[in-house]
Amino acid sequence: MGMTEADNMFKEFREHSVAEFFKKNRQMLGYSGKIRSLTTIVHEYVTNALDACEEAGILPDIIVHVDQLGNDHYKVMVSDNGPGIPKTHVGKVFAQMLSGTKFHRFIQQRGQQGIGASGCTMYAQITTGKPVKIITSSKKGLVYETEVMFDVKSNSPILTNEIEYKGDHVGTKITAEFKDVTFNWSEYGPSEYIRRTAVANPHARLVFTAPDKQRFVYERVVHILPPRPKPSMPHPSGMTVDDMLDYAHHAKERTIKSFLTQTFDRMSSDRADEIEKLTSIDFKRKPDSVTWKDAEELVSAIKKVKFLAPSSGNLHPIGEKQIEKAILNVLSPEFHAVRTRSPSVYRGGVPFIVEVGIAYGGKAGHTNGDGGSAKTEVMRFANRAPLLFDAGGDVITKTIGEIDWKRYGLKNLEEIPVTIVVNLTSTYIPYTSAGKQAISDEEDIRKEMALALMDVGREIGAHLRRQFKRGEKQAKRSTLLRYIPEIAGAVALLAVDNKALLEKKLLELVNKKYAEGAVSEDDDEEDEDAGATADEPVVEESDD
Amino acid sequence: MGMTEADNMFKEFREHSVAEFFKKNRQMLGYSGKIRSLTTIVHEYVTNALDACEEAGILPDIIVHVDQLGNDHYKVMVSDNGPGIPKTHVGKVFAQMLSGTKFHRFIQQRGQQGIGASGCTMYAQITTGKPVKIITSSKKGLVYETEVMFDVKSNSPILTNEIEYKGDHVGTKITAEFKDVTFNWSEYGPSEYIRRTAVANPHARLVFTAPDKQRFVYERVVHILPPRPKPSMPHPSGMTVDDMLDYAHHAKERTIKSFLTQTFDRMSSDRADEIEKLTSIDFKRKPDSVTWKDAEELVSAIKKVKFLAPSSGNLHPIGEKQIEKAILNVLSPEFHAVRTRSPSVYRGGVPFIVEVGIAYGGKAGHTNGDGGSAKTEVMRFANRAPLLFDAGGDVITKTIGEIDWKRYGLKNLEEIPVTIVVNLTSTYIPYTSAGKQAISDEEDIRKEMALALMDVGREIGAHLRRQFKRGEKQAKRSTLLRYIPEIAGAVALLAVDNKALLEKKLLELVNKKYAEGAVSEDDDEEDEDAGATADEPVVEESDD
Repeated sequence: MGMTEADNMFKEFREHSVAEFFKKNRQMLGYSGKIRSLTTIVHEYVTNALDACEEAGILPDIIVHVDQLGNDHYKVMVSDNGPGIPKTHVGKVFAQMLSGTKFHRFIQQRGQQGIGASGCTMYAQITTGKPVKIITSSKKGLVYETEVMFDVKSNSPILTNEIEYKGDHVGTKITAEFKDVTFNWSEYGPSEYIRRTAVANPHARLVFTAPDKQRFVYERVVHILPPRPKPSMPHPSGMTVDDMLDYAHHAKERTIKSFLTQTFDRMSSDRADEIEKLTSIDFKRKPDSVTWKDAEELVSAIKKVKFLAPSSGNLHPIGEKQIEKAILNVLSPEFHAVRTRSPSVYRGGVPFIVEVGIAYGGKAGHTNGDGGSAKTEVMRFANRAPLLFDAGGDVITKTIGEIDWKRYGLKNLEEIPVTIVVNLTSTYIPYTSAGKQAISDEEDIRKEMALALMDVGREIGAHLRRQFKRGEKQAKRSTLLRYIPEIAGAVALLAVDNKALLEKKLLELVNKKYAEGAVSEDDDEEDEDAGATADEPVVEESDD
Repeated sequence: MGMTEADNMFKEFREHSVAEFFKKNRQMLGYSGKIRSLTTIVHEYVTNALDACEEAGILPDIIVHVDQLGNDHYKVMVSDNGPGIPKTHVGKVFAQMLSGTKFHRFIQQRGQQGIGASGCTMYAQITTGKPVKIITSSKKGLVYETEVMFDVKSNSPILTNEIEYKGDHVGTKITAEFKDVTFNWSEYGPSEYIRRTAVANPHARLVFTAPDKQRFVYERVVHILPPRPKPSMPHPSGMTVDDMLDYAHHAKERTIKSFLTQTFDRMSSDRADEIEKLTSIDFKRKPDSVTWKDAEELVSAIKKVKFLAPSSGNLHPIGEKQIEKAILNVLSPEFHAVRTRSPSVYRGGVPFIVEVGIAYGGKAGHTNGDGGSAKTEVMRFANRAPLLFDAGGDVITKTIGEIDWKRYGLKNLEEIPVTIVVNLTSTYIPYTSAGKQAISDEEDIRKEMALALMDVGREIGAHLRRQFKRGEKQAKRSTLLRYIPEIAGAVALLAVDNKALLEKKLLELVNKKYAEGAVSEDDDEEDEDAGATADEPVVEESDD
């Protein structure tokens, strides 16, 4: 029988590795544009370094060097004081996509895909043909060095020049060359990336050396390590039928009841009994006997039972005090407000916490790097990692855009020296793509963000109203001061004998009513009332 | 030796399949939100159906049914009249990610990743536990039916209930059930997806049946099939060193020179000789002897040689006439303009063509589905497939936002009944994520789009000015008409005997000068001058 049309079309059918996929679609990993590509590399190495330190309970000390070797040709070096990488895992960490320790655990870390560092090796290789050099020590006194290349077709590492020797190296040091990348000082470049990392990670010390040898040191301002991230149990209300089946079939417990209480967060013995009553399933059966229909029954019963919100013990937001310290340290604002919301949950089961900080005046606001007029700057973070790109598709940008800032006295958000900091903390950040630069628009996340933004908005609104009133009073005062001699003259002509005395009296009056700087007590009371009782700032009548 | 901190951290190190990755990160494939999820499914099946028909040279006849089975529970059926899928490939097409015929070829098709259809099977399975049912015939008179499940851990298909029988089935018919999806009539729903598919595919017949049994038939308005997509050779100027090395090592030619001329587009024997002179490489060597250094020399020499722009013979835009027909058919606008630009190239080597259509009035503009006031609607397409989501991160949205529409008389783009259609045709669409809903911001693409948009902008600007003038004249005319009796009375009182005669004369005068509808010849000339000589519409002085 001859070739049909379909046979002909399918003769080129092939299977591809995930590394080939991301090599072809490298823009999905953040390799689009020379500036973004360089920032992506710094981002991947720095997030891994921070994660490693924190998981090992070490206050992070991260050093980043970017050297220019030629036109669009740079060398990047990132070193940390972390626990190191065991020799047997180095190859896979740096040249095997979708492998790692983070992918399958519910744990709050910056990395979560097992793609990033391998993506860097891939990009180094396709632009320079050179391997990435790793020096690491995971055992005190023993250092391992190797060069890593990537066999893209099979998604596996090729190690060369491996040596192991006695020495005092601490942590991991990565050195790699890249072409088709460019350094600049814009808000999309590595230096801004490091600056924002410092804002969200006041417990880390960060040193960044730019290609022109300028050195930026962000000292540690918080000396307490965030609690170690620990894997958390999944919350039952987030379970799909498929997940439930999967968990049941891999369970080691002897009954469905013990499987449920051992596997899921907030699943007490009482809750399990409640669920049993809502189903036709005998909970003494073995968990691996659960069928799709059983799992469907379990999931629909779970939806009818009230569970406590997911334990947030394994979620560690930056914290209001820490954000405050970081904002004061980096932005020296005239006024600031911060809010860490209580833990909440999206997709029915993934816990998260939203934090927002707002800074006004000082170094707040974005100046386009050219010292021009300030405008609002938004710093987005996911598990403390800065998100510099894809702002258009991000839930943070969308939510900020939907807030009616005029209510809070911020009339033209584009032209005000304000920095808004938003950090999402979660055991799973729903990124829109493997490039991890934008958070998907999950309704529950958007709601929490809106509430936090309105909170800080109200605070800044009250501040701005006080400031505005002060300014208004000053303006009135100086106008009146200017006319006092004339007024006095006029009044004197009409009725009074001593012009000098009258002028002095008038001056005292004006100075009393419109005292420079200070705001009278009843003004403050008004503001607090407005803040406490209504979302919308009270439009205050002119008080004279 | 005991476990070190690092050993302990790495004991949970695992490798994962690409299917596991996209199961966990399903929002990256478009499975975020119930409405978007349903549209994603329709999108994946319809684009595959159109691709299959076109590659086989068949005018597409696509039928889509969406049935509601319960709360957030739907059945989707998509059938085509394509060439069918050979029995041996059905499993991999529907349940193995990163396999397919499109991934490794430079060919203009809607699908290009080998993920979409497998993503649907994954989503059906994790939400309903049920397989996807396929009926296909790739050999006349022989029908193959099977059910496909997905072994996510190994990224491979599980086929059940396979049967083969004699029968008259044509093409492929897919039926699958999904939960966690919702149908609605918004601009993000399947019905809008099909409507837009009709706009960009006037050679296809599309029938869509909604859950309420409403049936929408988009008849074929163009009866000529677009030329069959053919793989094209890569253009030399887009080559990275890594690509060059890869091609050389897989080449079957006996010399480097013949490898170059046989592998790359626009690489004539003369160009190859030119390159040889710029390098230290002996072009009589075997291509598999090319080293990284050689490849670097080749790539840098290629950059110094002038090549013809990539052949566009394998790029098939919709075409101005076809877009016009589609716009008239679907939007019945009062005015429209279309522009298909010449082929261009991005990333140094990937050919593309930008097309833009603009429609004003009639059914153009977006009415929020509630018959409210119209505003500008943007229809984005990539290789004729509608892009409904992630508009914020898309180069089309960005470019439209950067155009100074006021120049063209479109003062408030948000409140004008305009539909802007943009289609990008390319052998490789640089999507920002595997969900294929936004095109990455490549500079060369943005430039071409801006030029095309300004082209149609000028045309619509000229139209609007004519219309405005007409309106202005009519307004003047009716004002004057209203006052004629009074003026006549006044004049009569002052000087004239016959008031009735005067009134008639005045009326004639006004009607002549401000004739309803028609625009005088010299007005038209002015408009054409403006369009032909300047980017900026001439601000015309009032002519009386």
